[in-house]
Amino acid sequence: MGNLIYIVGIGPGEECFLSGQAKKALENSDVIIGYTVYAELVKPVFPCKEYLTTGMTKEIERCRLCYEEAAKGKTVALVCSGDAGVYGMASPMYELLPEYENTELEVVPGITAANSGAAVLGAPLNHDYCVISLSDLLTPWETIEKRIKAAIAGDFAIAIYNPSSHKRKDYLMRACDIMLESGASPDRACGYVENIGREGQNATVCTLSELREAQVNMFTTVFVGNSMSFIQDNKLVTKRGY
Amino acid sequence: MGNLIYIVGIGPGEECFLSGQAKKALENSDVIIGYTVYAELVKPVFPCKEYLTTGMTKEIERCRLCYEEAAKGKTVALVCSGDAGVYGMASPMYELLPEYENTELEVVPGITAANSGAAVLGAPLNHDYCVISLSDLLTPWETIEKRIKAAIAGDFAIAIYNPSSHKRKDYLMRACDIMLESGASPDRACGYVENIGREGQNATVCTLSELREAQVNMFTTVFVGNSMSFIQDNKLVTKRGY
Repeated sequence: MGNLIYIVGIGPGEECFLSGQAKKALENSDVIIGYTVYAELVKPVFPCKEYLTTGMTKEIERCRLCYEEAAKGKTVALVCSGDAGVYGMASPMYELLPEYENTELEVVPGITAANSGAAVLGAPLNHDYCVISLSDLLTPWETIEKRIKAAIAGDFAIAIYNPSSHKRKDYLMRACDIMLESGASPDRACGYVENIGREGQNATVCTLSELREAQVNMFTTVFVGNSMSFIQDNKLVTKRGY
Repeated sequence: MGNLIYIVGIGPGEECFLSGQAKKALENSDVIIGYTVYAELVKPVFPCKEYLTTGMTKEIERCRLCYEEAAKGKTVALVCSGDAGVYGMASPMYELLPEYENTELEVVPGITAANSGAAVLGAPLNHDYCVISLSDLLTPWETIEKRIKAAIAGDFAIAIYNPSSHKRKDYLMRACDIMLESGASPDRACGYVENIGREGQNATVCTLSELREAQVNMFTTVFVGNSMSFIQDNKLVTKRGY
Protein backbone atom coordinates (compact mmCIF):
# COMPACT_ATOMS: atom_id res chain seq x y z
CA MET A 1 0.00 0.00 0.00
CA GLY A 2 1.35 3.40 -1.00
CA ASN A 3 0.53 6.92 0.02
CA LEU A 4 -3.15 7.40 0.71
CA ILE A 5 -5.37 10.27 -0.42
CA TYR A 6 -8.98 10.38 0.77
CA ILE A 7 -11.37 12.37 -1.41
CA VAL A 8 -14.03 13.31 1.09
CA GLY A 9 -17.55 14.63 0.51
CA ILE A 10 -18.47 16.72 3.53
CA GLY A 11 -22.17 17.18 2.71
CA PRO A 12 -23.99 20.45 2.18
CA GLY A 13 -22.59 22.57 4.94
CA GLU A 14 -22.36 22.20 8.65
CA GLU A 15 -20.67 19.45 10.59
CA CYS A 16 -23.94 17.60 11.20
CA PHE A 17 -23.93 16.31 7.62
CA LEU A 18 -20.54 14.58 7.94
CA SER A 19 -20.83 10.79 7.89
CA GLY A 20 -18.96 8.63 10.35
CA GLN A 21 -16.80 7.40 7.47
CA ALA A 22 -15.90 11.00 6.52
CA LYS A 23 -15.02 11.84 10.13
CA LYS A 24 -12.76 8.80 10.36
CA ALA A 25 -11.01 9.71 7.10
CA LEU A 26 -10.37 13.28 8.31
CA GLU A 27 -9.22 12.02 11.72
CA ASN A 28 -6.83 9.62 9.99
CA SER A 29 -5.30 12.35 7.78
CA ASP A 30 -2.19 14.41 8.39
CA VAL A 31 -3.19 17.27 6.13
CA ILE A 32 -6.58 18.52 4.93
CA ILE A 33 -6.64 20.22 1.54
CA GLY A 34 -9.52 22.07 -0.09
CA TYR A 35 -11.11 25.20 -1.40
CA THR A 36 -10.87 27.74 1.42
CA VAL A 37 -14.61 27.80 2.20
CA TYR A 38 -14.89 24.00 2.57
CA ALA A 39 -11.72 23.76 4.67
CA GLU A 40 -13.21 26.37 7.03
CA LEU A 41 -16.29 24.17 7.48
CA VAL A 42 -14.32 21.22 8.87
CA LYS A 43 -11.70 23.23 10.82
CA PRO A 44 -13.89 23.54 13.94
CA VAL A 45 -14.22 19.73 14.06
CA PHE A 46 -10.51 19.03 13.49
CA PRO A 47 -8.74 22.18 14.76
CA CYS A 48 -5.32 20.54 15.17
CA LYS A 49 -4.77 19.32 11.60
CA GLU A 50 -2.55 20.96 9.03
CA TYR A 51 -4.65 22.81 6.43
CA LEU A 52 -3.69 23.81 2.88
CA THR A 53 -6.21 25.79 0.85
CA THR A 54 -6.48 27.07 -2.71
CA GLY A 55 -8.88 29.43 -4.49
CA MET A 56 -12.13 28.53 -6.20
CA THR A 57 -11.04 27.89 -9.79
CA LYS A 58 -7.72 26.22 -8.91
CA GLU A 59 -9.04 22.65 -9.08
CA ILE A 60 -6.11 21.05 -10.89
CA GLU A 61 -3.53 22.85 -8.71
CA ARG A 62 -5.45 21.56 -5.69
CA CYS A 63 -5.32 17.99 -7.04
CA ARG A 64 -1.58 18.23 -7.68
CA LEU A 65 -1.04 19.66 -4.21
CA CYS A 66 -2.68 16.52 -2.80
CA TYR A 67 -0.32 14.26 -4.75
CA GLU A 68 2.71 16.35 -3.74
CA GLU A 69 1.81 16.22 -0.06
CA ALA A 70 1.12 12.48 -0.28
CA ALA A 71 4.55 11.99 -1.86
CA LYS A 72 6.05 13.42 1.35
CA GLY A 73 4.55 10.43 3.15
CA LYS A 74 1.53 12.25 4.57
CA THR A 75 -1.99 10.85 4.55
CA VAL A 76 -4.05 13.47 2.74
CA ALA A 77 -7.76 14.36 2.79
CA LEU A 78 -9.12 16.45 -0.06
CA VAL A 79 -12.44 17.91 1.11
CA CYS A 80 -15.29 18.69 -1.30
CA SER A 81 -18.71 20.17 -0.67
CA GLY A 82 -21.60 17.69 -0.98
CA ASP A 83 -20.38 14.49 -2.64
CA ALA A 84 -16.87 14.43 -4.11
CA GLY A 85 -18.15 12.34 -7.03
CA VAL A 86 -20.88 14.77 -8.18
CA TYR A 87 -19.31 17.58 -10.23
CA GLY A 88 -16.47 17.18 -7.72
CA MET A 89 -12.81 16.34 -7.49
CA ALA A 90 -13.01 12.54 -7.62
CA SER A 91 -12.78 12.45 -11.40
CA PRO A 92 -9.85 14.87 -11.91
CA MET A 93 -7.99 13.07 -9.12
CA TYR A 94 -8.37 9.77 -10.99
CA GLU A 95 -7.35 11.42 -14.27
CA LEU A 96 -4.08 12.62 -12.69
CA LEU A 97 -3.36 9.36 -10.84
CA PRO A 98 -1.29 7.72 -13.62
CA GLU A 99 1.22 10.60 -13.34
CA TYR A 100 2.04 9.76 -9.72
CA GLU A 101 3.60 6.58 -8.41
CA ASN A 102 2.75 4.59 -5.35
CA THR A 103 -0.43 6.51 -4.46
CA GLU A 104 -3.85 5.16 -3.63
CA LEU A 105 -7.18 7.04 -3.79
CA GLU A 106 -10.22 6.39 -1.61
CA VAL A 107 -13.44 8.24 -2.34
CA VAL A 108 -15.61 8.85 0.75
CA PRO A 109 -19.18 9.65 -0.33
CA GLY A 110 -21.16 12.58 1.05
CA ILE A 111 -24.72 13.85 0.80
CA THR A 112 -25.02 15.79 -2.44
CA ALA A 113 -27.23 18.88 -2.79
CA ALA A 114 -29.82 16.96 -4.84
CA ASN A 115 -30.58 14.79 -1.82
CA SER A 116 -30.02 17.30 1.00
CA GLY A 117 -32.09 19.92 -0.84
CA ALA A 118 -34.79 17.33 -1.56
CA ALA A 119 -35.08 16.60 2.17
CA VAL A 120 -35.73 20.29 2.84
CA LEU A 121 -38.39 20.53 0.12
CA GLY A 122 -40.18 17.29 1.08
CA ALA A 123 -39.80 14.41 -1.38
CA PRO A 124 -39.22 15.81 -4.89
CA LEU A 125 -36.85 13.02 -6.05
CA ASN A 126 -38.83 10.05 -4.75
CA HIS A 127 -38.96 8.45 -8.22
CA ASP A 128 -36.47 8.31 -11.14
CA TYR A 129 -34.52 11.57 -11.38
CA CYS A 130 -31.80 13.45 -13.25
CA VAL A 131 -29.09 15.73 -11.95
CA ILE A 132 -28.08 18.47 -14.41
CA SER A 133 -25.63 21.36 -14.02
CA LEU A 134 -26.32 24.56 -15.97
CA SER A 135 -22.66 25.61 -15.80
CA ASP A 136 -21.18 25.84 -19.29
CA LEU A 137 -17.61 26.40 -18.08
CA LEU A 138 -16.63 22.80 -18.94
CA THR A 139 -19.68 21.66 -20.96
CA PRO A 140 -21.02 23.15 -24.21
CA TRP A 141 -24.47 24.74 -23.80
CA GLU A 142 -25.76 22.48 -26.61
CA THR A 143 -25.03 19.42 -24.45
CA ILE A 144 -26.84 20.98 -21.48
CA GLU A 145 -29.81 21.81 -23.72
CA LYS A 146 -29.89 18.24 -25.07
CA ARG A 147 -29.96 16.88 -21.52
CA ILE A 148 -32.79 19.17 -20.40
CA LYS A 149 -34.86 18.05 -23.39
CA ALA A 150 -34.10 14.38 -22.65
CA ALA A 151 -35.01 14.82 -18.97
CA ILE A 152 -38.44 16.16 -19.94
CA ALA A 153 -38.91 13.51 -22.66
CA GLY A 154 -38.20 10.83 -20.03
CA ASP A 155 -40.50 12.54 -17.48
CA PHE A 156 -37.76 12.51 -14.86
CA ALA A 157 -37.83 14.66 -11.74
CA ILE A 158 -34.83 16.98 -12.09
CA ALA A 159 -32.31 18.51 -9.68
CA ILE A 160 -30.49 21.49 -11.22
CA TYR A 161 -27.05 22.55 -9.96
CA ASN A 162 -25.39 25.89 -10.73
CA PRO A 163 -28.62 27.52 -11.97
CA SER A 164 -27.03 30.96 -12.08
CA SER A 165 -23.82 32.94 -11.69
CA HIS A 166 -22.69 36.49 -12.30
CA LYS A 167 -21.99 35.73 -15.95
CA ARG A 168 -25.01 33.43 -16.47
CA LYS A 169 -27.89 35.33 -14.90
CA ASP A 170 -30.53 34.11 -17.37
CA TYR A 171 -29.55 30.40 -17.55
CA LEU A 172 -32.39 29.14 -15.36
CA MET A 173 -34.87 31.11 -17.46
CA ARG A 174 -33.39 29.56 -20.61
CA ALA A 175 -33.60 26.09 -19.05
CA CYS A 176 -37.25 26.66 -18.08
CA ASP A 177 -38.05 27.80 -21.61
CA ILE A 178 -36.51 24.59 -23.01
CA MET A 179 -38.62 22.53 -20.59
CA LEU A 180 -41.78 24.39 -21.57
CA GLU A 181 -40.99 24.00 -25.28
CA SER A 182 -40.35 20.28 -24.64
CA GLY A 183 -43.88 19.83 -23.36
CA ALA A 184 -43.65 20.41 -19.60
CA SER A 185 -46.75 22.15 -18.28
CA PRO A 186 -46.36 25.73 -16.97
CA ASP A 187 -48.09 24.38 -13.84
CA ARG A 188 -45.45 21.64 -13.27
CA ALA A 189 -44.64 21.54 -9.53
CA CYS A 190 -41.15 22.92 -8.79
CA GLY A 191 -39.08 24.34 -5.95
CA TYR A 192 -35.68 25.61 -4.95
CA VAL A 193 -33.51 25.75 -1.84
CA GLU A 194 -30.88 28.36 -1.02
CA ASN A 195 -27.96 27.73 1.35
CA ILE A 196 -28.80 24.09 2.09
CA GLY A 197 -27.65 23.15 5.59
CA ARG A 198 -26.18 26.59 6.18
CA GLU A 199 -27.23 29.84 7.76
CA GLY A 200 -29.91 31.43 5.59
CA GLN A 201 -31.39 28.13 4.40
CA ASN A 202 -34.59 28.99 2.57
CA ALA A 203 -36.97 26.78 0.57
CA THR A 204 -39.58 27.90 -1.96
CA VAL A 205 -42.16 25.88 -3.90
CA CYS A 206 -43.61 27.22 -7.14
CA THR A 207 -44.84 26.32 -10.61
CA LEU A 208 -42.52 25.97 -13.60
CA SER A 209 -43.72 29.31 -14.99
CA GLU A 210 -42.94 30.95 -11.63
CA LEU A 211 -39.55 29.22 -11.54
CA ARG A 212 -38.76 30.89 -14.87
CA GLU A 213 -38.91 34.28 -13.09
CA ALA A 214 -37.23 33.17 -9.85
CA GLN A 215 -34.18 34.98 -8.48
CA VAL A 216 -31.57 32.30 -7.85
CA ASN A 217 -27.83 32.35 -7.28
CA MET A 218 -24.85 30.01 -7.18
CA PHE A 219 -25.93 28.77 -3.73
CA THR A 220 -29.37 27.67 -4.97
CA THR A 221 -30.33 24.12 -5.95
CA VAL A 222 -33.44 23.92 -8.14
CA PHE A 223 -35.95 21.06 -8.35
CA VAL A 224 -38.42 20.34 -11.16
CA GLY A 225 -41.01 17.65 -10.46
CA ASN A 226 -42.10 15.03 -12.94
CA SER A 227 -45.57 15.24 -14.53
CA MET A 228 -47.14 13.59 -11.44
CA SER A 229 -45.44 15.70 -8.75
CA PHE A 230 -47.55 18.00 -6.59
CA ILE A 231 -47.29 20.71 -3.96
CA GLN A 232 -48.89 20.00 -0.58
CA ASP A 233 -48.63 22.43 2.36
CA ASN A 234 -45.52 24.07 0.92
CA LYS A 235 -43.78 20.76 0.26
CA LEU A 236 -42.85 19.33 -3.17
CA VAL A 237 -43.75 15.64 -3.45
CA THR A 238 -43.08 13.11 -6.21
CA LYS A 239 -44.98 9.86 -5.83
CA ARG A 240 -43.15 6.54 -5.52
CA GLY A 241 -45.28 5.03 -8.29
CA TYR A 242 -47.80 5.79 -11.01
CA MET B 1 -45.42 22.25 17.20
CA GLY B 2 -47.16 18.88 17.12
CA ASN B 3 -45.91 15.32 17.19
CA LEU B 4 -42.64 14.88 15.33
CA ILE B 5 -41.71 12.09 12.92
CA TYR B 6 -38.19 11.99 11.50
CA ILE B 7 -37.81 10.12 8.21
CA VAL B 8 -34.17 9.14 8.38
CA GLY B 9 -31.87 7.93 5.61
CA ILE B 10 -29.24 5.72 7.24
CA GLY B 11 -26.97 5.34 4.21
CA PRO B 12 -25.98 2.12 2.48
CA GLY B 13 -25.30 -0.12 5.40
CA GLU B 14 -23.06 0.09 8.37
CA GLU B 15 -23.07 2.72 11.06
CA CYS B 16 -20.16 4.59 9.51
CA PHE B 17 -22.45 6.02 6.84
CA LEU B 18 -24.81 7.71 9.33
CA SER B 19 -24.57 11.49 9.27
CA GLY B 20 -24.37 13.52 12.45
CA GLN B 21 -27.86 14.83 11.70
CA ALA B 22 -29.22 11.27 11.40
CA LYS B 23 -27.58 10.27 14.69
CA LYS B 24 -29.12 13.27 16.44
CA ALA B 25 -32.57 12.44 15.06
CA LEU B 26 -32.32 8.83 16.25
CA GLU B 27 -30.98 9.92 19.64
CA ASN B 28 -33.88 12.36 19.96
CA SER B 29 -36.51 9.69 19.15
CA ASP B 30 -38.53 7.55 21.53
CA VAL B 31 -39.27 4.80 19.05
CA ILE B 32 -37.45 3.66 15.90
CA ILE B 33 -39.62 2.09 13.20
CA GLY B 34 -38.50 0.36 10.03
CA TYR B 35 -38.18 -2.69 7.86
CA THR B 36 -36.57 -5.34 10.05
CA VAL B 37 -33.21 -5.37 8.24
CA TYR B 38 -32.71 -1.58 8.50
CA ALA B 39 -33.76 -1.48 12.16
CA GLU B 40 -31.14 -4.15 12.89
CA LEU B 41 -28.48 -1.93 11.33
CA VAL B 42 -29.04 0.92 13.79
CA LYS B 43 -29.81 -1.19 16.88
CA PRO B 44 -26.12 -1.61 17.85
CA VAL B 45 -25.74 2.20 17.87
CA PHE B 46 -28.92 2.85 19.87
CA PRO B 47 -29.51 -0.35 21.83
CA CYS B 48 -31.84 1.21 24.44
CA LYS B 49 -34.54 2.56 22.12
CA GLU B 50 -37.94 0.98 21.51
CA TYR B 51 -38.03 -0.73 18.10
CA LEU B 52 -41.06 -1.60 15.97
CA THR B 53 -40.48 -3.45 12.72
CA THR B 54 -42.59 -4.56 9.77
CA GLY B 55 -41.95 -6.82 6.78
CA MET B 56 -40.56 -5.80 3.41
CA THR B 57 -43.70 -5.04 1.39
CA LYS B 58 -45.64 -3.46 4.26
CA GLU B 59 -44.70 0.13 3.43
CA ILE B 60 -48.07 1.78 4.01
CA GLU B 61 -48.67 -0.15 7.25
CA ARG B 62 -45.24 1.03 8.38
CA CYS B 63 -46.15 4.65 7.59
CA ARG B 64 -49.43 4.40 9.49
CA LEU B 65 -47.61 2.80 12.43
CA CYS B 66 -45.41 5.91 12.58
CA TYR B 67 -48.42 8.22 12.71
CA GLU B 68 -50.13 6.05 15.35
CA GLU B 69 -47.04 6.03 17.58
CA ALA B 70 -46.62 9.79 17.14
CA ALA B 71 -50.26 10.29 18.15
CA LYS B 72 -49.35 8.71 21.51
CA GLY B 73 -47.00 11.64 22.05
CA LYS B 74 -43.81 9.81 21.11
CA THR B 75 -41.11 11.26 18.89
CA VAL B 76 -40.74 8.75 16.06
CA ALA B 77 -37.88 7.91 13.67
CA LEU B 78 -38.71 5.97 10.52
CA VAL B 79 -35.44 4.52 9.21
CA CYS B 80 -34.83 3.88 5.50
CA SER B 81 -31.83 2.44 3.70
CA GLY B 82 -29.80 4.96 1.72
CA ASP B 83 -31.75 8.21 1.37
CA ALA B 84 -35.39 8.27 2.52
CA GLY B 85 -36.26 10.50 -0.46
CA VAL B 86 -34.94 8.17 -3.19
CA TYR B 87 -37.51 5.40 -3.85
CA GLY B 88 -38.05 5.66 -0.09
CA MET B 89 -40.70 6.43 2.48
CA ALA B 90 -40.57 10.25 2.41
CA SER B 91 -43.18 10.49 -0.33
CA PRO B 92 -45.78 8.03 1.07
CA MET B 93 -45.37 9.70 4.47
CA TYR B 94 -46.23 13.09 2.95
CA GLU B 95 -49.15 11.57 1.03
CA LEU B 96 -50.65 10.25 4.28
CA LEU B 97 -49.95 13.41 6.31
CA PRO B 98 -53.32 15.12 5.59
CA GLU B 99 -55.11 12.21 7.29
CA TYR B 100 -53.38 12.87 10.61
CA GLU B 101 -53.68 15.97 12.76
CA ASN B 102 -51.02 17.84 14.62
CA THR B 103 -48.06 15.93 13.18
CA GLU B 104 -44.89 17.29 11.66
CA LEU B 105 -42.46 15.49 9.33
CA GLU B 106 -38.73 16.10 9.05
CA VAL B 107 -36.75 14.33 6.33
CA VAL B 108 -33.11 13.62 7.27
CA PRO B 109 -31.11 12.93 4.12
CA GLY B 110 -28.75 9.99 3.76
CA ILE B 111 -26.21 8.77 1.23
CA THR B 112 -28.11 6.96 -1.53
CA ALA B 113 -26.68 3.93 -3.34
CA ALA B 114 -26.01 5.98 -6.49
CA ASN B 115 -23.44 8.03 -4.59
CA SER B 116 -22.09 5.39 -2.19
CA GLY B 117 -21.73 2.90 -5.03
CA ALA B 118 -20.09 5.54 -7.21
CA ALA B 119 -17.46 6.11 -4.53
CA VAL B 120 -16.59 2.41 -4.58
CA LEU B 121 -16.32 2.33 -8.38
CA GLY B 122 -14.28 5.55 -8.68
CA ALA B 123 -16.10 8.52 -10.18
CA PRO B 124 -18.84 7.25 -12.55
CA LEU B 125 -21.34 10.06 -11.79
CA ASN B 126 -18.95 12.99 -11.96
CA HIS B 127 -21.07 14.74 -14.63
CA ASP B 128 -24.85 14.97 -15.25
CA TYR B 129 -26.54 11.69 -14.31
CA CYS B 130 -29.85 9.86 -14.04
CA VAL B 131 -31.12 7.48 -11.41
CA ILE B 132 -33.52 4.82 -12.75
CA SER B 133 -35.18 1.89 -11.00
CA LEU B 134 -35.96 -1.22 -13.05
CA SER B 135 -38.66 -2.33 -10.61
CA ASP B 136 -42.05 -2.43 -12.33
CA LEU B 137 -44.00 -3.10 -9.13
CA LEU B 138 -45.24 0.52 -9.00
CA THR B 139 -44.20 1.78 -12.45
CA PRO B 140 -45.29 0.46 -15.87
CA TRP B 141 -42.41 -1.09 -17.84
CA GLU B 142 -43.22 1.30 -20.73
CA THR B 143 -42.33 4.26 -18.46
CA ILE B 144 -39.06 2.60 -17.44
CA GLU B 145 -38.24 1.90 -21.09
CA LYS B 146 -38.99 5.53 -22.03
CA ARG B 147 -36.63 6.74 -19.31
CA ILE B 148 -33.78 4.44 -20.37
CA LYS B 149 -34.11 5.72 -23.94
CA ALA B 150 -34.16 9.33 -22.73
CA ALA B 151 -31.11 8.76 -20.54
CA ILE B 152 -29.13 7.51 -23.54
CA ALA B 153 -30.48 10.28 -25.81
CA GLY B 154 -29.30 12.84 -23.23
CA ASP B 155 -25.93 11.07 -22.84
CA PHE B 156 -26.31 10.94 -19.07
CA ALA B 157 -24.29 8.68 -16.82
CA ILE B 158 -26.85 6.32 -15.25
CA ALA B 159 -27.24 4.66 -11.86
CA ILE B 160 -29.67 1.73 -11.99
CA TYR B 161 -31.50 0.55 -8.84
CA ASN B 162 -33.32 -2.78 -8.51
CA PRO B 163 -31.66 -4.31 -11.59
CA SER B 164 -33.01 -7.77 -10.80
CA SER B 165 -35.23 -9.79 -8.51
CA HIS B 166 -36.57 -13.34 -8.41
CA LYS B 167 -39.42 -12.44 -10.73
CA ARG B 168 -37.42 -10.08 -12.95
CA LYS B 169 -34.24 -11.99 -13.71
CA ASP B 170 -33.81 -10.64 -17.23
CA TYR B 171 -34.60 -6.95 -16.60
CA LEU B 172 -30.99 -5.73 -16.69
CA MET B 173 -30.48 -7.58 -19.98
CA ARG B 174 -33.61 -5.92 -21.36
CA ALA B 175 -32.40 -2.50 -20.16
CA CYS B 176 -28.99 -3.06 -21.80
CA ASP B 177 -30.69 -4.05 -25.05
CA ILE B 178 -32.70 -0.81 -25.00
CA MET B 179 -29.50 1.18 -24.42
CA LEU B 180 -27.74 -0.60 -27.29
CA GLU B 181 -30.75 -0.05 -29.60
CA SER B 182 -30.77 3.62 -28.53
CA GLY B 183 -27.22 4.07 -29.81
CA ALA B 184 -25.00 3.35 -26.82
CA SER B 185 -21.80 1.59 -27.88
CA PRO B 186 -21.29 -2.04 -26.79
CA ASP B 187 -17.94 -0.77 -25.45
CA ARG B 188 -19.56 1.86 -23.20
CA ALA B 189 -17.77 1.82 -19.81
CA CYS B 190 -19.97 0.35 -17.06
CA GLY B 191 -19.75 -1.19 -13.62
CA TYR B 192 -21.72 -2.57 -10.71
CA VAL B 193 -21.38 -2.87 -6.95
CA GLU B 194 -22.89 -5.55 -4.74
CA ASN B 195 -23.59 -5.07 -1.01
CA ILE B 196 -22.41 -1.45 -0.85
CA GLY B 197 -21.01 -0.66 2.60
CA ARG B 198 -21.81 -4.14 3.87
CA GLU B 199 -20.03 -7.44 4.26
CA GLY B 200 -19.41 -8.90 0.82
CA GLN B 201 -19.00 -5.53 -0.92
CA ASN B 202 -17.75 -6.26 -4.42
CA ALA B 203 -17.19 -3.94 -7.39
CA THR B 204 -16.83 -4.92 -11.05
CA VAL B 205 -16.10 -2.80 -14.11
CA CYS B 206 -17.09 -3.98 -17.57
CA THR B 207 -18.38 -2.91 -20.96
CA LEU B 208 -22.07 -2.47 -21.74
CA SER B 209 -22.10 -5.72 -23.72
CA GLU B 210 -20.54 -7.53 -20.72
CA LEU B 211 -23.06 -5.86 -18.40
CA ARG B 212 -25.82 -7.41 -20.50
CA GLU B 213 -24.60 -10.85 -19.37
CA ALA B 214 -23.80 -9.90 -15.77
CA GLN B 215 -25.28 -11.82 -12.84
CA VAL B 216 -26.81 -9.19 -10.56
CA ASN B 217 -29.32 -9.34 -7.72
CA MET B 218 -31.50 -7.04 -5.62
CA PHE B 219 -28.44 -5.92 -3.63
CA THR B 220 -26.58 -4.72 -6.75
CA THR B 221 -26.42 -1.12 -7.97
CA VAL B 222 -25.46 -0.79 -11.63
CA PHE B 223 -23.63 2.11 -13.30
CA VAL B 224 -23.54 2.97 -17.00
CA GLY B 225 -21.07 5.68 -18.00
CA ASN B 226 -21.81 8.44 -20.51
CA SER B 227 -20.19 8.33 -23.96
CA MET B 228 -16.97 9.87 -22.54
CA SER B 229 -16.56 7.63 -19.49
CA PHE B 230 -13.59 5.28 -19.30
CA ILE B 231 -12.13 2.46 -17.24
CA GLN B 232 -8.71 3.03 -15.66
CA ASP B 233 -7.07 0.50 -13.35
CA ASN B 234 -10.39 -1.14 -12.52
CA LYS B 235 -12.10 2.19 -11.77
CA LEU B 236 -14.99 3.73 -13.72
CA VAL B 237 -14.43 7.43 -14.36
CA THR B 238 -16.69 10.06 -15.94
CA LYS B 239 -14.94 13.33 -16.74
CA ARG B 240 -16.06 16.61 -15.17
CA GLY B 241 -16.23 18.24 -18.62
CA TYR B 242 -16.07 17.64 -22.35
